Amino acid sequence: MRFVDVINKKAEGEELSTEEIRKMVDDYTNDRIPDYQMSAMCMAIRLNGMNARESTDLAMAMMHSGDVVDLSDLPGIKLDKHSTGGVGDTTTLVVAPLVAACGGTVAKMSGRGLGHTGGTLDKLESIPGTNVEQSMENFRKIVRENGVAVIGQTGNLVPADKKMYALRDVTGTVRSIPLIASSIMSKKLASGADVIVLDVKTGSGAFMRTKEEAFELARLMVDIGHLAGRKVSAVVTDMNQPLGMAVGNVLEVREAVELLSGEIPETDPLYEVCMILGSGMLELAGLAKDDAEARRMLKEKIENGEGLAKLRKMFELQGGDPSYLSKEGMEKLLNVKKHVFLKADQDGYVNRINAEGIGTAAQMLGAGRATKEDKIDPAVGLVMKVRCGDSVKAGDVLAELYVNNEDRLEEALKLLKDSIHISKDYRVPDPMVYGVIS
Amino acid sequence: MRFVDVINKKAEGEELSTEEIRKMVDDYTNDRIPDYQMSAMCMAIRLNGMNARESTDLAMAMMHSGDVVDLSDLPGIKLDKHSTGGVGDTTTLVVAPLVAACGGTVAKMSGRGLGHTGGTLDKLESIPGTNVEQSMENFRKIVRENGVAVIGQTGNLVPADKKMYALRDVTGTVRSIPLIASSIMSKKLASGADVIVLDVKTGSGAFMRTKEEAFELARLMVDIGHLAGRKVSAVVTDMNQPLGMAVGNVLEVREAVELLSGEIPETDPLYEVCMILGSGMLELAGLAKDDAEARRMLKEKIENGEGLAKLRKMFELQGGDPSYLSKEGMEKLLNVKKHVFLKADQDGYVNRINAEGIGTAAQMLGAGRATKEDKIDPAVGLVMKVRCGDSVKAGDVLAELYVNNEDRLEEALKLLKDSIHISKDYRVPDPMVYGVIS
Repeated sequence: MRFVDVINKKAEGEELSTEEIRKMVDDYTNDRIPDYQMSAMCMAIRLNGMNARESTDLAMAMMHSGDVVDLSDLPGIKLDKHSTGGVGDTTTLVVAPLVAACGGTVAKMSGRGLGHTGGTLDKLESIPGTNVEQSMENFRKIVRENGVAVIGQTGNLVPADKKMYALRDVTGTVRSIPLIASSIMSKKLASGADVIVLDVKTGSGAFMRTKEEAFELARLMVDIGHLAGRKVSAVVTDMNQPLGMAVGNVLEVREAVELLSGEIPETDPLYEVCMILGSGMLELAGLAKDDAEARRMLKEKIENGEGLAKLRKMFELQGGDPSYLSKEGMEKLLNVKKHVFLKADQDGYVNRINAEGIGTAAQMLGAGRATKEDKIDPAVGLVMKVRCGDSVKAGDVLAELYVNNEDRLEEALKLLKDSIHISKDYRVPDPMVYGVIS
Repeated sequence: MRFVDVINKKAEGEELSTEEIRKMVDDYTNDRIPDYQMSAMCMAIRLNGMNARESTDLAMAMMHSGDVVDLSDLPGIKLDKHSTGGVGDTTTLVVAPLVAACGGTVAKMSGRGLGHTGGTLDKLESIPGTNVEQSMENFRKIVRENGVAVIGQTGNLVPADKKMYALRDVTGTVRSIPLIASSIMSKKLASGADVIVLDVKTGSGAFMRTKEEAFELARLMVDIGHLAGRKVSAVVTDMNQPLGMAVGNVLEVREAVELLSGEIPETDPLYEVCMILGSGMLELAGLAKDDAEARRMLKEKIENGEGLAKLRKMFELQGGDPSYLSKEGMEKLLNVKKHVFLKADQDGYVNRINAEGIGTAAQMLGAGRATKEDKIDPAVGLVMKVRCGDSVKAGDVLAELYVNNEDRLEEALKLLKDSIHISKDYRVPDPMVYGVIS
């Protein structure tokens, strides 16, 4: 069958066979299918969809397009988490060491930030000396010693996804739930974990703008994971405001350290999302019998400092200087030129926050990248002082900005101000968690 | 606006603006939009459609991508006809001279055959000496002298369509009614006629397999023509069996000559379709006040031989030797190595014919091309001896094959046999004309 016939099949709304999908990925990765055919196919998939079986075949084919990490020589059950990306999402830095402290093995590959969303690798590198580009050998060694390591993608992992994503980015075929699900899951499957907990974010700062889309994506990714023989669950969480209060690299590491030090109350949204993700991982791995036990275990590792110790050790083994994780160390790293305070210009309630605006404002200050080539300033960013539902008086501080370069400060301040809506009307804030899919 | 945003707009089901369509065609023609973006856009159009306004904008933009023929210096109203392609469709060779004999000006550009369908240019060239590649100057001169000329596309007509069609052909984006309509109409509009009558074929030998699709295509092309300021109507006609009895190049010219000589009865399907097309042209041009008058005029030009005289003169002016149009001339050209007769192997009724199979069988004999590079043998082909609804006895001749090269004769015979279904059950044949759109 010629590939044009396979495109026509999908354009006519038919299901593609396992063999057709496998051959498509293999041929495209090896330049036997030209971009102009693949982009037409991606558009046909965007508009006509793919079912769970097809999406699984696509994820599996992409996974097998390059190296597949084998973690079977490492002790214990290998756990992974993945977030679809948001603002102020520091969960990996909290959950990975906590779960390791509970006996899980977390050999995790993370990504970098782009646009308004942050990336774990950038946060790790904000601690001087930390090297996220470890050899597979070192990576295994660190995990074996400490139970946890977080590095960048190594080796030739899912080249098909890299090639397809670059094409989708310029051909209007990014917004396809089966393509997004297959792309994410191909990477997760290739990374070798037995247990995967997915955090699918929805709201103004997330890629999935509606809850419906988020649940659809979560369901499909869980189905793919199951069909591929992994233990997978997903949580749909809110991104209508930043998850944590800190948006910026050192700032977010500081918030993670504070959480692991027991300085952040259990009612805090970041705390709650870390608990639900960590609990999901421990339960799926069989390390806890239910959510209550899992939460008790995680809380204990906060209270006895074992979680923080894992994080410090992880930084140390990856070349970072853990002394920076102390309060004084953090102060040193956050020694910016200028602190600027955004204040409320009226009394009222914070009844809506545009999380994308907050993330973009931080990016304008230098905390993130507009394009892949941009340099990040680890020290800059902002700390939110209010959340949705808070009552404020005119003059109250809404956010504190950490500034080194003032070129885009005015622009960032304006965007920030426009992103925090204050009104006389009180609106009950969205919940932090919308549901769990397993 | 970046083109990827325009692709996304169409992928989300939105209407594209005139400016977006104009810029898209201009940028694609001039290599400022890569194939991989254009193919994604074509798929989005295939699956989400375009309305009449968008389709018209696309047709107009493609028309303006190259030369536009200006026929305004020629006398009278310029008329054109177009068929979406079929088997045994010799109408141009009949209608063009007849309409010219009635006072119309027919300066027509035609195409070549591909696959199971024939092309007017190949039929013209089957008469020795005929040159279908005339300069615009000669073309005008011939039309001025004789009122009718049929040549191949000249100059740089609709380069956007050529480029888009080549891309659509390999990206599963051919089967889109708005893209088909815009493609056909861009060429018709660029050819400079004031009046255009479209013959949209539907059935087993046509590109539009269902009547619904055919009516949709016809309606959209007529709408485009009207929005572009031309007089346009369309006829939806049957292609569930070959239109004429002859399938092959000289064979079809012979059938056209027979019709123009008054040797084919009015009840014949080819005769009827020629009448309805010619009548539409004369009416739209104001050369006849209604269908009855138009048919009287056309019939008169058959009876008094003026139609045939126009055809002979046209061949002569284009370099062909009109003596070949005589019975003896035709015999000479049809002097093939072998006549093979396909006979019925049972009594019954011809209750279904697969027109594509008939066309492909003729192509296998050398009458048509499988690929654009194939050479045609003008003398070969086949003449059907039965039509749908006919009663046959075992041993009756179903078709006569004109054969020079026997390499694929067996294959052709088998396909032909499989394409003529004989059964004890009588089925009322499909009508030749399904409707008229104006």
